[in-house]
Amino acid sequence: MGTVFLDMVMSLDGFVAGPDNTDSGLHDWYFAPAGNATFVIDELLETIGAMILGNRAFGEQPEGFDTPYHVPHFVLSHTARPTIVNGEASFIFVDSIESALAQAREAAGEKSVCVAGGAATAQQLLNAGLIDELQIHIVPMLLGGGLRLFDQIKPVKLEQTRVLESPGVTHMRFAVLR
Amino acid sequence: MGTVFLDMVMSLDGFVAGPDNTDSGLHDWYFAPAGNATFVIDELLETIGAMILGNRAFGEQPEGFDTPYHVPHFVLSHTARPTIVNGEASFIFVDSIESALAQAREAAGEKSVCVAGGAATAQQLLNAGLIDELQIHIVPMLLGGGLRLFDQIKPVKLEQTRVLESPGVTHMRFAVLR
Repeated sequence: MGTVFLDMVMSLDGFVAGPDNTDSGLHDWYFAPAGNATFVIDELLETIGAMILGNRAFGEQPEGFDTPYHVPHFVLSHTARPTIVNGEASFIFVDSIESALAQAREAAGEKSVCVAGGAATAQQLLNAGLIDELQIHIVPMLLGGGLRLFDQIKPVKLEQTRVLESPGVTHMRFAVLR
Repeated sequence: MGTVFLDMVMSLDGFVAGPDNTDSGLHDWYFAPAGNATFVIDELLETIGAMILGNRAFGEQPEGFDTPYHVPHFVLSHTARPTIVNGEASFIFVDSIESALAQAREAAGEKSVCVAGGAATAQQLLNAGLIDELQIHIVPMLLGGGLRLFDQIKPVKLEQTRVLESPGVTHMRFAVLR
């Protein structure tokens, strides 16, 4: 069975979005990948069998956002909504992390479940002990403010399992030690 | 002339000390270096010509702390104190970052000036635009609380100049873009 991993982009000072929720260029490397970033993105496309994301990360688009991942996306939402099918991707609205995780594991089969944000969703799953691995893409900027990825979390011991450098970003992987 | 660089160890979630100011194992890699850590530590010993540190980072030892750096250490302190000589190292107490930096540059000559903490001193020098480079040693742990390195800072654009992986730590270097 695949692992449940958190995949997030953050600035060196720990923000996943800048002040006023701006992207601040954090994802530039993703949209114009160079060096190891190409491998890392291809690996994500090949290994992810299901996604979990928060309602705000999903966004407010009625059709679901444009995703390169042709897998079921389980969106945490307190409001019941009908499933959205967008090409080969689907968006299924669920009301708890436990339900999201059970359905995502089932859908992913041998592949991995990717928790793709936002920060609050990441914190909730981390604090519930439901994350096996972290992939953090560290971007060389100090934003000075915004939305912190690691805030209000319990201590977690990690093992550094991979470090890959790309132009303008470093991809770090960690296993959660239990 | 050498650069002025910040050299700090931080957890993946951005803390330079854990709750209650404990080290939390953040510096274990430094005291038992393996892999690239040996090179990185040797490089520090060879290239640092003067140190700047805050009064709390210096500590309260009357003789000055045991330092492997046989260079002048400029300690920010609001209280005038006589210089301490400890073997080949010395501790000179200065009352402003400008004075510390001027004296440290002079003492370092062609070598680099290392700003070695604590967090408040790092923030003060960063916000004054006085840091040319950052070397951040990222340790694979989420402490969940403690003293944040990057807090109350202005936005800074960085260029990632080097990434070295060692067992239990990743050494990242950045140039400050102006």
